[in-house]
Amino acid sequence: MTRAVVLLSGGMDSATCLALASERGLDCYALSFDYGQRHSAELDAAAAVAMAIGVAAHRVLRMDLGALGGSALTDEHISVPVTASDDIPVTYVPARNTVFLSFALGWAEVLDADAIYVGVNAVDYSGYPDCRPEYIAAFQRVADLATKRSVEGRPIRIETPLIDMTKADIIRWGVGLGVDYGLTVSCYQATSAGEACGVCDACRLRRSGFAEAGVDDPTRYAAP
Amino acid sequence: MTRAVVLLSGGMDSATCLALASERGLDCYALSFDYGQRHSAELDAAAAVAMAIGVAAHRVLRMDLGALGGSALTDEHISVPVTASDDIPVTYVPARNTVFLSFALGWAEVLDADAIYVGVNAVDYSGYPDCRPEYIAAFQRVADLATKRSVEGRPIRIETPLIDMTKADIIRWGVGLGVDYGLTVSCYQATSAGEACGVCDACRLRRSGFAEAGVDDPTRYAAP
Repeated sequence: MTRAVVLLSGGMDSATCLALASERGLDCYALSFDYGQRHSAELDAAAAVAMAIGVAAHRVLRMDLGALGGSALTDEHISVPVTASDDIPVTYVPARNTVFLSFALGWAEVLDADAIYVGVNAVDYSGYPDCRPEYIAAFQRVADLATKRSVEGRPIRIETPLIDMTKADIIRWGVGLGVDYGLTVSCYQATSAGEACGVCDACRLRRSGFAEAGVDDPTRYAAP
Repeated sequence: MTRAVVLLSGGMDSATCLALASERGLDCYALSFDYGQRHSAELDAAAAVAMAIGVAAHRVLRMDLGALGGSALTDEHISVPVTASDDIPVTYVPARNTVFLSFALGWAEVLDADAIYVGVNAVDYSGYPDCRPEYIAAFQRVADLATKRSVEGRPIRIETPLIDMTKADIIRWGVGLGVDYGLTVSCYQATSAGEACGVCDACRLRRSGFAEAGVDDPTRYAAP
């Protein structure tokens, strides 16, 4: 059975991505990170999603990304913004996707997996530079050169099935795949019980996605 | 003062790289990793080297790279080989340099540093794929696309001043820069007191480098 490493944050995009990889018949190895994020409820969500969809293994790697500072998601002294912006917002975590993909690459090589699935999206997203197609293409090149497997002619593919989709399309697709979005947490400052603020960028994108898709939003929001 | 992040393993190449960056007048931020390596004496060596050369800060990030398995350097059930090989050896840690460079990239962005110095070498090395110039070029492209700083037109340069040098040349250069190689640890299975086995690939490269350079080798070897 062909293996894939699936990055699983606990949000709706990565849950959809896992459901898709699973539906393609891949033996899925879900990878989450405890990196000092303030919204650690997403790790509980990741575990619940992995259990519901079914994976060969789910691993949570602890790391000290917060020790490097510089982001509202890991530094409690920087507030999560509640207004939209054309700039890259302070919720951007420096090099986060590069770090995540690097670990996924290492695990994929150890597992002899053929692919890494990552639910990045460059349409309804927060404007992070490391979600764009050209960034993913650059990381693919790193993957092609970095690993023993690639040198032996068996590269590890970086798969981004959601990258060009709107949030509404992702939701419609996920509902068709049977994803229970009630298990997922998107909010940047969710409570430990998983209640969403309703006003941060991630909540705004999620809410409007459900509205546009015409699907009932199962999220528990603190703000109406 | 211009800042640089310098990856510092505690081995001789990274020590030389730090000395060079320091000599160039850069404000150096040394970064080491406690990744479950069996030769943790190198972390003591990294601290000693950082102190001796002088840095603005030295940070040791803990991470769970060993949890992914697959390398003799992080798995005590896989022996460190003592014979040379044309293949990529089992001491290769999957995606290690990609993980290390990713964290360096994140820290460089937070520090607003212009460069990352890494002492990779593709001449007298163990044949790891993630030490080759084409790999570094690919990671440079990732760095150019991944970060907020790069998007704003101020990319972070990956500097590899040792990549084309022989071990003997590195040693001669380092001696000229005042590096105390007695503080460094290269051995893949050094004792906690820093005594080298004398027979692993890293020891072999180190010994022959000192011999070729005509420099006294300050290393304490267990095997003659």
